[in-house]
Amino acid sequence: MRIKQFFLLLAAGVIVLHSLPVNAQVSHDADSVTIRKLYNEALQNGKTDSNLRYLTSRIGARISGSPQAQQTIDWAMRTMGQYHPDSIYLQPVMVPHWVRGAKETSYFTSKGRKVTMDVVALGGSIGTNGILMAPVVEVTSWAALAALTDDQVRGRFVFFNRPMDPTEIETFKAYLAVVDQRTQGAIAASKKGAVGALVRSLTLAKDDHPHTGAMSYDTAVKKVPAAALSTNSADKLSEALRKDPALRYSLRMNCIQLPDVLSYNVIAELKGSVHPNEYVTVGAHIDTWDLSEGASDDGVGIVQVMEVLRLFKATGIQPERTIRMILYMNEESGAHGAIKYAQQASLKAEKHVAVIESDAGGFAPRGFRIETSAAGMAQFQQWRTLFMPYKADDIQLQQRGVDLVPMKGQAKALISLDTDDSRLFYIHHSAIDTYDKVNPREVLMGAAAMAAMVVLISRYGL
Amino acid sequence: MRIKQFFLLLAAGVIVLHSLPVNAQVSHDADSVTIRKLYNEALQNGKTDSNLRYLTSRIGARISGSPQAQQTIDWAMRTMGQYHPDSIYLQPVMVPHWVRGAKETSYFTSKGRKVTMDVVALGGSIGTNGILMAPVVEVTSWAALAALTDDQVRGRFVFFNRPMDPTEIETFKAYLAVVDQRTQGAIAASKKGAVGALVRSLTLAKDDHPHTGAMSYDTAVKKVPAAALSTNSADKLSEALRKDPALRYSLRMNCIQLPDVLSYNVIAELKGSVHPNEYVTVGAHIDTWDLSEGASDDGVGIVQVMEVLRLFKATGIQPERTIRMILYMNEESGAHGAIKYAQQASLKAEKHVAVIESDAGGFAPRGFRIETSAAGMAQFQQWRTLFMPYKADDIQLQQRGVDLVPMKGQAKALISLDTDDSRLFYIHHSAIDTYDKVNPREVLMGAAAMAAMVVLISRYGL
Repeated sequence: MRIKQFFLLLAAGVIVLHSLPVNAQVSHDADSVTIRKLYNEALQNGKTDSNLRYLTSRIGARISGSPQAQQTIDWAMRTMGQYHPDSIYLQPVMVPHWVRGAKETSYFTSKGRKVTMDVVALGGSIGTNGILMAPVVEVTSWAALAALTDDQVRGRFVFFNRPMDPTEIETFKAYLAVVDQRTQGAIAASKKGAVGALVRSLTLAKDDHPHTGAMSYDTAVKKVPAAALSTNSADKLSEALRKDPALRYSLRMNCIQLPDVLSYNVIAELKGSVHPNEYVTVGAHIDTWDLSEGASDDGVGIVQVMEVLRLFKATGIQPERTIRMILYMNEESGAHGAIKYAQQASLKAEKHVAVIESDAGGFAPRGFRIETSAAGMAQFQQWRTLFMPYKADDIQLQQRGVDLVPMKGQAKALISLDTDDSRLFYIHHSAIDTYDKVNPREVLMGAAAMAAMVVLISRYGL
Repeated sequence: MRIKQFFLLLAAGVIVLHSLPVNAQVSHDADSVTIRKLYNEALQNGKTDSNLRYLTSRIGARISGSPQAQQTIDWAMRTMGQYHPDSIYLQPVMVPHWVRGAKETSYFTSKGRKVTMDVVALGGSIGTNGILMAPVVEVTSWAALAALTDDQVRGRFVFFNRPMDPTEIETFKAYLAVVDQRTQGAIAASKKGAVGALVRSLTLAKDDHPHTGAMSYDTAVKKVPAAALSTNSADKLSEALRKDPALRYSLRMNCIQLPDVLSYNVIAELKGSVHPNEYVTVGAHIDTWDLSEGASDDGVGIVQVMEVLRLFKATGIQPERTIRMILYMNEESGAHGAIKYAQQASLKAEKHVAVIESDAGGFAPRGFRIETSAAGMAQFQQWRTLFMPYKADDIQLQQRGVDLVPMKGQAKALISLDTDDSRLFYIHHSAIDTYDKVNPREVLMGAAAMAAMVVLISRYGL
């Protein structure tokens, strides 16, 4: 074979080189046996499905500050306790407590016609204090809003109708590209004198389910109510506005922010046999929005974190570094749990090697999204072949997990389990994020992939 | 960088070589633009979802020989006709016509207790002609059956209870490893004098849904009825047999094989601009089993094949070789449509470059499974990078598609679209193969992946 031909086939992936040094090859083989053991245990005896069934059917929605959030804490302590970690404890944290109140009502009237809209309050929004009725101005970009005079906005709802881009192959990127209209819309609208913000739901579906999610206020700007419209409702409103720019929009929301509540992160530990003072964490978030049982966001993550603990105990694999299974409170509206964890870790000057999270739903795991140094990334890429047999070897540099951010600078790598997320953005933060959308086998594959990553980091560090 | 280090990073995937010759690089770039165009058109304007909704909700199950199969033919002619192919026609074929009749009833009695079983007749099975009651002998391997004396089997049901292996990462392989108990069970049981075959459903789920599928008879061996038990029923029966090997099993099935029926393949053509007498086909199967609307098996394939035609017309891409969109009749019980197509192609001495099919459900496409020569495979591997941006670049040598087999030897490559099939084997051939299990975006991604493959083969041949 000529050299050029060799490189051609190499580039095309026909030839794969295995030129690890002898020692590396030996440990590589041992690692692959360990990882196979974890997958076998998960796929044969995994408990994620029964745990997820319990969580979704017996507890359900568990928004920060709710009784159901506390029930989940209690259940998580019991369940992980049964898997016999070296220790398990609660980490107190104050969290916001927002409640939706009676269901929203919304419609518009145009030329004597009344059209009902499918609407939910965005998380953290103020209520409307009765019926709020006003004309609407539609924008599909920040530039379009900036181009409007205050007169064109004052006394109206601003309708943010920028859709997720269906041609973006990475649906998570399509979401991140439009999420600012949900998080920043109320502030931007209010600055120009609007009475409220109406936001197109962030979903790839055309349907009647509105999708909620976190939104922000600015202390220097008057708070105005913010609501999400289903994509079908958004399309109807947009079409009606083209025919009748003077139509009147009516919104009633009964949500309210109550005083903060004492809540907890749940933390279980397996002590490291060689470096007990170095930590690898694997986490997910307890809280959900209030519209559904939160099966994918993040019930799946919770039961996968529990499964990682169970897998270590069931296989007898002893971690070299200390592993912490962490269930964070309050990812959805401020990440106060994750912030508390990072503060405590900093106060104790703990050495964190890596923090891992699962928050991408009950779908096929594809790999990991990692924020780390170039050297760190080279290390992860060397482990890639170990994940290939399980099709979880798509490892890319990207910052993603909300609960990981507070550990930036304290941990050498922030790692998110990546799934095939086409399905996630059909259900995310809506009433249809339910158990039946989750595939039990895909959840197990994700748990095993995380356990494999934990084993490698715990063994070799970073 | 030292050479050794270079190879190390190369092996780990940190370095990716792009050393295509200049000409190849230029056409590679042009191809990537063409493929992006196909994906954009599909993701923005795709019709698969509305077509699948129609098929599943307005027509539903469409087993070979049924009025619904004919309705699907008529609808497919209308629908593809609207996309303006160069020609569209029907290819007549005689197909089997099996009907289930009144729902099966089944139970066992043990120690005065009667336990209902969830059971369906396997496709093509004879009925029981009233109630068939007999003891049961359970086997979990062919060796175990061979080890039994005829006396141990005579007058009993043989209960084939070999499960799909949950630790096999490729679920399709796990299926292929056990499917012989369904296809060959009745023959093997009858040879030893059994009165019938009971087969554990081929699914990864533990639930109450029995899964049907094709089974065979041998003209030299007495026909006996064959039924599938849900996995929960199979587990119950197995447990009961351990406690009471003499329990009595009762089965009533009302299925019957009617005379063969005249039916059709539906074929639409786009003429090749350079090599009109060379063919690339892209197909799926019209018929389903009778238990569900067959959304994933193979409604998705049908609407993807229609979409491939629509994509070519909507983007104005002109194929160099002739493309045939083929909807085969009767994949599930004999592949008579595909056999007819191959016979006609052979009679006319048509030059077929490749035959492609989609029959893996409404799940995320991962790539292609291909049966071809080593030279053919090297060609496909060179195209791999073109599928990488769409995560459809997992291209492996494997024979899969039932409707492709008759073209073996006539076409240079037999190509199956591969999806992430974890979810497929929870629903396959059961009552829960329904529209709600399908993700609209994943169907579009699959249609675009097939169109991309068609473009490349039509442009370069094999």
